[in-house]
Parts: sequence; C-alpha cells; structure tokens
Amino acid sequence: MDLLIKNIDIVTMDDCNKVIKNGYIGIKDDKISLVSDSLPKGTQWKEQIDGKRKIAIPGLVNGHSHSAMTLMRNYADDMALETWLFDNIFPVEAKLTEEFVYWGTMLGIVEMLKSGVIAFADMYMFMEEVARAVTETGIKANICKSPVQFFEDGELKRLDKSQGTIDYYNKYHNAADGRIKVFVEIHSTYMFNERTLANAAALAKQLNTGIHIHLLETAAEVESSNRDYGMTSVEICKKTGVLDVPVLAAHCVHMTDSDLEIMKAAGASICHNPTSNLKLGSGIARIPDMLDMGINVCLGTDGAASNNNLNMFEEMNLAALIHKGAAMNPQLMKAKDVLKMGTCNGAKALGFEDSGMIKEGMKGDLILIDTDKPHLYPKTNPVSAIVYSAQASDTDTVIIDGKIIMQDRKFKNIDEEKVMFEADALSRKLLT
Amino acid sequence: MDLLIKNIDIVTMDDCNKVIKNGYIGIKDDKISLVSDSLPKGTQWKEQIDGKRKIAIPGLVNGHSHSAMTLMRNYADDMALETWLFDNIFPVEAKLTEEFVYWGTMLGIVEMLKSGVIAFADMYMFMEEVARAVTETGIKANICKSPVQFFEDGELKRLDKSQGTIDYYNKYHNAADGRIKVFVEIHSTYMFNERTLANAAALAKQLNTGIHIHLLETAAEVESSNRDYGMTSVEICKKTGVLDVPVLAAHCVHMTDSDLEIMKAAGASICHNPTSNLKLGSGIARIPDMLDMGINVCLGTDGAASNNNLNMFEEMNLAALIHKGAAMNPQLMKAKDVLKMGTCNGAKALGFEDSGMIKEGMKGDLILIDTDKPHLYPKTNPVSAIVYSAQASDTDTVIIDGKIIMQDRKFKNIDEEKVMFEADALSRKLLT
Ligand SMILES: [Zn+2]
Ligand SMILES: [Zn+2]
Repeated sequence: MDLLIKNIDIVTMDDCNKVIKNGYIGIKDDKISLVSDSLPKGTQWKEQIDGKRKIAIPGLVNGHSHSAMTLMRNYADDMALETWLFDNIFPVEAKLTEEFVYWGTMLGIVEMLKSGVIAFADMYMFMEEVARAVTETGIKANICKSPVQFFEDGELKRLDKSQGTIDYYNKYHNAADGRIKVFVEIHSTYMFNERTLANAAALAKQLNTGIHIHLLETAAEVESSNRDYGMTSVEICKKTGVLDVPVLAAHCVHMTDSDLEIMKAAGASICHNPTSNLKLGSGIARIPDMLDMGINVCLGTDGAASNNNLNMFEEMNLAALIHKGAAMNPQLMKAKDVLKMGTCNGAKALGFEDSGMIKEGMKGDLILIDTDKPHLYPKTNPVSAIVYSAQASDTDTVIIDGKIIMQDRKFKNIDEEKVMFEADALSRKLLT
Repeated sequence: MDLLIKNIDIVTMDDCNKVIKNGYIGIKDDKISLVSDSLPKGTQWKEQIDGKRKIAIPGLVNGHSHSAMTLMRNYADDMALETWLFDNIFPVEAKLTEEFVYWGTMLGIVEMLKSGVIAFADMYMFMEEVARAVTETGIKANICKSPVQFFEDGELKRLDKSQGTIDYYNKYHNAADGRIKVFVEIHSTYMFNERTLANAAALAKQLNTGIHIHLLETAAEVESSNRDYGMTSVEICKKTGVLDVPVLAAHCVHMTDSDLEIMKAAGASICHNPTSNLKLGSGIARIPDMLDMGINVCLGTDGAASNNNLNMFEEMNLAALIHKGAAMNPQLMKAKDVLKMGTCNGAKALGFEDSGMIKEGMKGDLILIDTDKPHLYPKTNPVSAIVYSAQASDTDTVIIDGKIIMQDRKFKNIDEEKVMFEADALSRKLLT
C-alpha cells in the first residue's frame, strides 16, 4: 500500500453521509483502499500523513468555468451586462491567442488547486491549450469543443466544424490517465439555431458523450428564446435532442415549472453559479426547488471576469446563504446538501462517477482542510465549519488519483511563481 | 519619525478616493504623518516595511458583533429561528460566566485581527470582560452596557440598572488610550418598553454618548412593534428620544420609506449584516436605497453563532453581490462604495472619527494585504481585488494607533495558540 492518512476527521460524503472522527484513509495506487475508524493490524504504508487538526473531504468540483478569463480578473466590474460584454470582454477576447489561453488556464488551475478543487468543467477557445494545462498539472477536467464556428469575416454564419470536435474528442477523451473527459460544447441556444442544436445533439450521441451548455442565464434569454423559437430554451433543447445525452447546464436562473420537469425527466445536471448570477445581476436560480425534485445540482464559479475568483468555498457559502435569505427560510440549503453539491454532485455532472466520495474503491481525490485557525475553533460540526466558516486558503493538501499534488500549500510539481509571473505579463499585454 | 511603509499601493479611502501606486506611508506615534507617491528627502525612520506586492487599506471595522459567541460557532445551523434561539442558543447562554465571555471574546478578537479588522462594535453580557480583552489585545472597540436587567427569577421585569451603565461608561469610555468607546445598549424595542426606551435615551443624552440597538431585524419585529406600540420600531425610537443621540442600528432589514427618512433625518448609522440576515432567513435589507439617501451604512458580522465567522472580507463580498442579484442590477453596490462601508463608514458609526482613511493626521489604523497569491493576479483594479477576489487570510499586517499588532500573519503580543486552546476547552464545557 502507498499512502496512509492517520488521526484524521473524515467527512466521507458517502451514501450514509458518515463522519468519522480520528480515523484512517488508505490509498493504493490511484484508489482509496481503506476508510476506517481503526487501523487494520499489520498493514504497511510507504508514506504517511498525520491528519491531526485536519478534516478530509472529497475534493471540490468546479462545475462551470472559463479558466483563462483569470487574465481579465478585476478588469471591468459593476457595469451593465452589455457594457461589460460588448465594450470590455469581447474586444479583449478578440486578441486572445494560444499563449494567452494556456497561461490564463494555468493561473486558473493553480488558483483552483490552492482552493481545494480537484476537477473543473471548462468552456472556452483554444481548448487544446486547456487540455495541455490539465495534463501538465495533474488536475481533472471536463473540457469541450464547439462543433460550430459562429463568425467569418465578422458575419454571423454558424459554420459546421463538427470534424474538429470529433478529432478533439478522439485525441483527449480519457486522456491524461483518464483525468480528461470531453463533452460537446453548445454555447447557448441563442448563439446556435435549430439546425446547429440538432447537429450538436446528434454529434454527442454519435460520440457517446455529453453536452456542456449555458442555459437560461438571463431574463433576456427568456425573451429571445420565445421570439426565435416560440418556446423556452429548455423546450428547444428537448425538441432538438440536446437533452437525450448527459447534459451539464450552467446557470438555469430563469426556469418555469415545466422547464424543471423536463430537466428532471432528462436526468440533466444543473450547475449553480451564485457569485456570477449575483454579480451580473442575472437573478437567483430556483435551487431549493431543483433539489426538492431530485435534480443533480452542482456548483461553479463561472469565469474570473464575472466573479472575480475561482473560489469554491465562497460558492458553497453563498449557495448556503442566499436562498435562505431570498425565501426568508433558514431551513433551506442545509450545509450537508451544499457540500454534496460542491463535491459528489459535481463529480457526477462532469462524468467522474468514481470520484466525489471518500469511500473504498473510489478514486483517491480528496483534500485536507487545516482547522488549526482561530476561525475554525471550537471543533464542533465539521460540515458546518467547511460550508460556513472555512476559507479557500484553509486547504492544506490536495490529492488527485492518489497523487499528492499539493501539501502544506506547496506544490510538488508546479512552478507557482512562474505561472503568476507569466500570466501577469500577458495580462498587461492583453488589457492595454 | 517611527515607521515607514514603502513601495506600497495605497487605497486611501480619503475624500477624493485616491489610489496611489508604489507610494509611501509614514507613521509618527499613533498618527499617519505622510501619504505620498514620493519620499521627502532627508527623513529618518526607525522602522521600515517593504510594501512590495502589497496593498494598504484602512483597517476594516466590524459594525455589529457578539464576539464571545465564537464559543457557539457551528453548533446549531440550518434551523428555524425559534428552534435555534430558544432550544439552542438561550440554554447555552444561561450557562455563561465571566471566564467564558473573556475567552470567547479573545477568540473573536484574534480571528478579527487576522482578518484585517481594527475595530468592532460589541453587544453582549459580562461586558467588563470584553473591555479587558480589548485593552489587552490592542484592537479598538465600541462596547455598550444595558441600563435594563430583563429577568429576575425567570420573570420579565425590566429592572432599572442605569447606575451600572453610568459606572461602566465612566470606567471605560476613552480608556485604553482612547481605543474604547462606550455606548448605551438598547437590545431592541421588543425587549424594552416605552418607559425603558425613554430612560435609556435620556441616559445616553446625559452621558453625551450614543446607542447601539438591534432594529427591525425580522418580519416578526414589524408585527410585534405594530401590536405593542401601534407604530414601527423606528417611530417608537423617535418618539422616545432614542434617535436624538448618535445611533448604531444593526440590521434594519424591514424598513418603510418613512422609517428610512426618519433614520436619515436623525443622522443614524445603520449596520448591514448580510451573512446573518441571509443565514437566519431574516431577509435582504434595502441597502442600495439607504446609500442613495446618504445614510451612513457600515458592515458587520453579527455573532459567530449566526454567521459562522467574523470575516469582514466575506461581508464586503456579500454586500457587493446580493443586492445586484436581488434587484437584477449589476450597477448597484460598486466595489468602492462597499469598501467605504467596510472601513470609514464603520469608523464613523463607532465614534472613531479620526480613523477609516489613510490620510495625514488620521490615526495609524491600517492593514496590508498580501497580493502575491494566484487569486490576486493579475494586478488590475486594487479596490475590486479587495472586495471581489481577496480572502481574509490575505491580511498580512495589522497596524492600530501606529503600533504593529500583526506582521506576516504573526502577532507581536498575543498568544494565539493559548487563545485557541482555552476557547476550545471552554466551548466543550459549555456545549455538553
Ligand atoms: Zn459561463
Ligand atoms: Zn446582533
């Protein structure tokens, strides 16, 4: 056996929601081989970690992001959505190249790992660079590629690029020892049309994979969908076959009862992005209703241009708080349900079914939280402590596929200084 | 001269909202003597701090807290307000003694200092112990004492204890080199009655000081005030003279237009506690309206039993986000206005008029944020970075009245380990 974590409080997030005090986690190769409150006699361990004053939880999963947008962090805030997008973000994105996306994604990954994230879903351009950054750093990711090129010579044309998506899928799906999953990207129903939605759905079916989509983020999308399709975005997705494959749908802020029923029946996953939805003034999604219905809801940060960080602890905290306040009901969104959204629901939504729990046989994807801080005393309920009290910087150790990626907040194989330096220099170029 | 901070980006929060890049802050004795983008020739400094890759801001001010409630952190969450209060918090509070309150407050102060807080307003029991903890640690505080004892032998009696408040005021107001201000406590209009409200107001007038009060936190208070007084809580405060002195009113979630007009006319300060209001399901206060009217709004954490931390970075982040989302307007609550709420508005509300800005002549109350972290790259807008991206743990240095209290996250004169140990042990006693 390889790695033993001892004297550790374990929030397993397994089927019985077990919390083990002062227990043991064993990892052999890439899998969890032991989760127990006592150590079987005679076992041998190559490496040991003392978990005293630490809590182990499954690694966090960021269900929706555009990581390279870290380069635009704190660049354009507190403005109307159109000003933000058309006058600030789009002109900058027009200048992006492979190099920008690689280093922006590296900065995002370094930030996420230091915040306890073991997997993220990403949608952006130059996605080969995202695959490269994922492969190099040891994190897991669900990445996607659009089968449609929208513009040619500045004109909206919606050109078929499905061969590019097929090639991307063949090259990267299950690559990096299985750490990469590839979905088909549908940016949104308003950027696609009925023909390209149906084509993308057929392509995902053909590849036997899922679809990552922005869905009903704003009130404006409700209007445009009714105007352009004569139905809601969810309904046009159903009609064109988009919901016949595993779907990871970001936002879903403006859903009718019927939309929710359709999503539930399709087994679609919804990614709640509380910071982004609040910051851009999109509104507050009906998350308590979704959870009541048994929809698989995970959590995401969206891009750093609308957040302005990739901090899943903040997303958990917000998700636990805002729905209580908006509905004036403190019993909604209990800490354990929110932690589930931030861990196993996310793993499931991204296609990492063997991750998201600390349980024998699951992948060794977990993080250790250092609780030896004033804001984490006294030691009462560890689940409440993680959701309501902890900061991202309390992440001490990150283990992915049984490998220690970060320990004592230091990376084993990533040059953090270089990543910050390169990203900063490129950002200066980009934003001037 | 005593202390020079050089090569530092300075968010002054002064009247012109100046941001100085790569500048200098000089501190002589307890005051700021120099704020400049260049260093005057020939000046001598006993001590120097290199501010490279750091941002200086005025220290944060926690406008409403019950610090000793850190002992009940993560003890009772996600329950109906009555269950939380009557079945969980009150039975524990009945067991409190001086010792519990001292160590609970010490834990709260240590947490706040490590989160960049230089002053806090506190309302609780055994307030002598709070004064002791403030005196020992070097933080500033607005503390208060109730002129009413509510219960005797379990019966609601509202006994006059104004002499105790007078003695407390005389002993502690402007004590600890002026770091302590004493207000009169009015817990709330529903715990007081018309007679005791008028008496407390008269007492504050007689002492020439202010009043700290919980005001219109819940919808239930709207009802009870109408029932008991035939008017809103704000109106009964006006009628009884409570608003004739400087008032620090926590929450103010359920205010009519007329209530807001009365508060504005009185020059009252309102403390917004976004986490607590959301977590307890109290609702979302009309903060954008208050700011539009020019009311002095500051920010607070409330107690750790309803938060569950004393993290003002989180409160700023939440304040900047939730009102945008609730009103679906991304232009509300701009970062610079929120930072003002977290700093100078708080200083003003607590009676520290010579604090809250980095400006020559003001008290040396400031913090340095370490920006050499992935989530704070690239270096774009420092105000956005602090409100939207930073974590409490990015606080590197805390300076109060010109004294370095914490540097490189290490305390000069506080035994952090001992505080955590004692508080943890006492909490075990208290909660079992
Ligand atoms: Zn997005
Ligand atoms: Zn309170």
